[in-house]
Amino acid sequence: MTTIKKINHVAIVVRDIEESLKFWEEQLGLKLDHIEVVPTQHSRVAFIPVGDSEVELVQPTSSDSGLAAYLEKRGEGMHHICFEVDDIDAKLAELKEKGVRLINETAEVLPGRKMAFIHPKAGNGVLIELYQLTD
Amino acid sequence: MTTIKKINHVAIVVRDIEESLKFWEEQLGLKLDHIEVVPTQHSRVAFIPVGDSEVELVQPTSSDSGLAAYLEKRGEGMHHICFEVDDIDAKLAELKEKGVRLINETAEVLPGRKMAFIHPKAGNGVLIELYQLTD
Repeated sequence: MTTIKKINHVAIVVRDIEESLKFWEEQLGLKLDHIEVVPTQHSRVAFIPVGDSEVELVQPTSSDSGLAAYLEKRGEGMHHICFEVDDIDAKLAELKEKGVRLINETAEVLPGRKMAFIHPKAGNGVLIELYQLTD
Repeated sequence: MTTIKKINHVAIVVRDIEESLKFWEEQLGLKLDHIEVVPTQHSRVAFIPVGDSEVELVQPTSSDSGLAAYLEKRGEGMHHICFEVDDIDAKLAELKEKGVRLINETAEVLPGRKMAFIHPKAGNGVLIELYQLTD
């Protein structure tokens, strides 16, 4: 069986990254690494390292994305948890063989990483992202 | 400023730990460490290590607890994120001074750890637990 190495990040959907950083940085005491625009996910993402993992603040950049709809429906809060794996293609094949409902049956290839989502109906309502770093 | 060391765990509220483990163990491939009854939290907790952190499956053990009410209202899913700190009393004092809304103004002392919750209204709807290991 393929290995799950660690929690890569926990993603939190927010309305406004700069406003939110007042809590995460100034009050809680974490430090922002950088902010990235991720056009394929219609979002801006603030990467905030914590130990060996990250907190990611994710802000929708278009009002008609799935993320924006989630934010309207559920409000701000934890959105997904991302596990880093050693071989995402093998992991997806394993999950598929076991009948686990996937959002992405094959990994999306981005610079530096491959990623896919498991459907929240598979795992106690939790949206799970899988990451394989490829750098 | 006190240090946040890492994500200690991400807690997922579930109806039935044994049923849920079919996904987290048999399908996803993580390994249960142990299950603990936590009477003060009216819950049973399954501890599942992932890298330097844990996933915790939390099942209410009484129908009139806050956790049970949360489960009825929101359904299964991510419940809180827990950050490990080096000095929880100092961290709580800092947060209080900065006007951050806390659920516990002083830490609850349990065997091996001290813990407190920050109110979800403080941080983008995210319920945050702080842990200091004392063993």
